[in-house]
Amino acid sequence: MSNLIEAMKWRYSVNKFDKSNKLTDSQFNELLEALILSPSSYGLQPWKFIVVTNPEVRVQLQAAGYGQPKITEASHLIVFAVEKNIDNALVDKYIASVANTRGLSVGDLKGYKDMIKGSLATKTEDQKVEWATRQLYIALGVLITAGAVNNIDVGPMEGFDTKKFDEILGLDKLGLESKVMAAVGFRSSDDPHAADKKVRYSKEEVVIEVK
Amino acid sequence: MSNLIEAMKWRYSVNKFDKSNKLTDSQFNELLEALILSPSSYGLQPWKFIVVTNPEVRVQLQAAGYGQPKITEASHLIVFAVEKNIDNALVDKYIASVANTRGLSVGDLKGYKDMIKGSLATKTEDQKVEWATRQLYIALGVLITAGAVNNIDVGPMEGFDTKKFDEILGLDKLGLESKVMAAVGFRSSDDPHAADKKVRYSKEEVVIEVK
Repeated sequence: MSNLIEAMKWRYSVNKFDKSNKLTDSQFNELLEALILSPSSYGLQPWKFIVVTNPEVRVQLQAAGYGQPKITEASHLIVFAVEKNIDNALVDKYIASVANTRGLSVGDLKGYKDMIKGSLATKTEDQKVEWATRQLYIALGVLITAGAVNNIDVGPMEGFDTKKFDEILGLDKLGLESKVMAAVGFRSSDDPHAADKKVRYSKEEVVIEVK
Repeated sequence: MSNLIEAMKWRYSVNKFDKSNKLTDSQFNELLEALILSPSSYGLQPWKFIVVTNPEVRVQLQAAGYGQPKITEASHLIVFAVEKNIDNALVDKYIASVANTRGLSVGDLKGYKDMIKGSLATKTEDQKVEWATRQLYIALGVLITAGAVNNIDVGPMEGFDTKKFDEILGLDKLGLESKVMAAVGFRSSDDPHAADKKVRYSKEEVVIEVK
């Protein structure tokens, strides 16, 4: 079995994290770097990653997250937030970043810029935010895999009051909305779920081959 | 630099695949296995992965995909489809799978089953499909990362006529809807985009630390 598959089998949805076991800066920075390198549609990166280590804030978030213990117990908490305004200004900012990185002028990228703006113009505000939110989930998938190959537990959570999270973290006034989060750390040796057999449909059940 | 970060920097959005360079069965099966192991909310796996290797079907899909060359040129094409009916039957099927895998009775899992059904009951049909679609994007992120660490190119594509894809692949009558796809293969040595510098916002631009 390859290291990757071994890693994906090793990972599970940790319920109880080891409070005393923290990621080193170098371990955490590698995960952050993987997140930053995640691909997104057009390369737009319509996201911010909120890293919450402050223990008092974690307690507040926990109250807005159905009291889930991992919100306070995991080494790190990353909240994935989407840009609320998927507008021309966001595209212009991205195009400026492309031009700057690749030593081009913004004019050189007019065709690409117009193509992105044209595509966004076909969507409603809600559809744009939902489309951008899907990109956040790519980054979440990257983080989960990056954690697994490094034997670091990543526990995604959707069950929380996003409006309260936005208030607590001040995301509203930054034009952001929280969508999903991940507890990052190390499993406790007495997590009651550690021994549960992984449940996955078989290849025959979820793969359709068109040969 | 770690292998993982090196891999994430190595990957890019390949425009031109090498038509003659195919994944071996063992390479492809590893990626499929990673997809199957992808986590999803509640573990529900509301997805099917359609692996299209038939060249005639690939040509038809290409016509419904704005003629993108990678649809026919990449070694493999994987279409990610979501279950259209995120209903109690889908939950019951999953709970039966949990019971079977873990040697439990369905009755033992009543609390878990009712919790999932209760949560789904708060969503409209559209919201349920969108929520399930987000889970597909976790799997897409896993596939991208799995490809990268194996030096296999994974090119996600959202730009296609999903209704036509559903017709061509017969997904309609299976209760499925195509949502996103990925070309899987190896970059051509003369891909004009191979030398483009990767564009990503800096850590300062996308990470907010709450210490």
